[in-house]
Amino acid sequence: MADLDPDFRQSIPDGDDRVRRICTHCDFVDYVNPKIVVGSVARWEDKFLICKRAIEPRLGYWTLPAGFMEEGETVEQGAAREAREEACADLEIERILAIYSIPRISQVQIMFEATLRSQDVRPGPESTDVKLVTWDEIPWDDLAFPSVHWALKQWKSVEGQAAYAPFGNPAGSEHLTHG
Amino acid sequence: MADLDPDFRQSIPDGDDRVRRICTHCDFVDYVNPKIVVGSVARWEDKFLICKRAIEPRLGYWTLPAGFMEEGETVEQGAAREAREEACADLEIERILAIYSIPRISQVQIMFEATLRSQDVRPGPESTDVKLVTWDEIPWDDLAFPSVHWALKQWKSVEGQAAYAPFGNPAGSEHLTHG
Ligand SMILES: [Zn+2]
Ligand SMILES: [Zn+2]
Repeated sequence: MADLDPDFRQSIPDGDDRVRRICTHCDFVDYVNPKIVVGSVARWEDKFLICKRAIEPRLGYWTLPAGFMEEGETVEQGAAREAREEACADLEIERILAIYSIPRISQVQIMFEATLRSQDVRPGPESTDVKLVTWDEIPWDDLAFPSVHWALKQWKSVEGQAAYAPFGNPAGSEHLTHG
Repeated sequence: MADLDPDFRQSIPDGDDRVRRICTHCDFVDYVNPKIVVGSVARWEDKFLICKRAIEPRLGYWTLPAGFMEEGETVEQGAAREAREEACADLEIERILAIYSIPRISQVQIMFEATLRSQDVRPGPESTDVKLVTWDEIPWDDLAFPSVHWALKQWKSVEGQAAYAPFGNPAGSEHLTHG
């Protein structure tokens, strides 16, 4: 049970070099670091795995399997776990496709290329539907987030290449990524 | 001033799906997500930038410029900022070299290839010395962290390649990265 609401002052903790939020009751320091999202462009033959969101934000829109990295896992394990949770999918993580920095929401998104070990997919608790769709069947107007567009288009731009340097934020995307 | 020490219970917050540490006084939820370290293998001609640590851990050992990502910046900006803070160095960030997952200390380290825009480097507050050294001059026995070794060796293994897939944790490193 809570005795007190958190009540934060702005102050520089000992040994630190910038202002943080610190609880006036218990001196808890709220270190707000960017959070890591891990996800994938996952394929079965010529098809892509997409998931219809059962939760906000962007409920009802289509997304790639992705979510917050947890403690105790690698980035690759996190990306595979998210596909398992959202689409009951079994992924082979292959290589890094892109790293997006989105300071506006304090996220770094690490996107992988992956292949499905089986085409047996079905909605997990965070999805109302999951599908394997060809490139031409991707519901471009109903994608949940700009980074879903970016990852798919960037994947297409290096399709079949043996090696490529991973992508970052697309040029001209500052209005979407920053304040 | 603090009235109470933080005192955490283990509990699942509303709408979450796993146990978190929650302060019994003020219900502050301690979401412990992996933190992002950004750094670089930075070169001036055939030389590498290394920094002698002025702070714990591994005070007195040599490292690559790297540190915790802050809010409001991209991963590339964070890697450039760390080199500026630690070595007063001006970097051009080129591409992603590696992403290391180190669950043992809850870090994800994103390492870039970079070049120096000038060879004018000098110690910042977190370094007692900085140097530009050739490959043969790297103080292998006095490097601060395993990931410093990994980044340098992996850089060498793709030296001169136009494109390559970034590296992850080296095979056989589980004893260093996991609990
Ligand atoms: Zn508190
Ligand atoms: Zn508290």
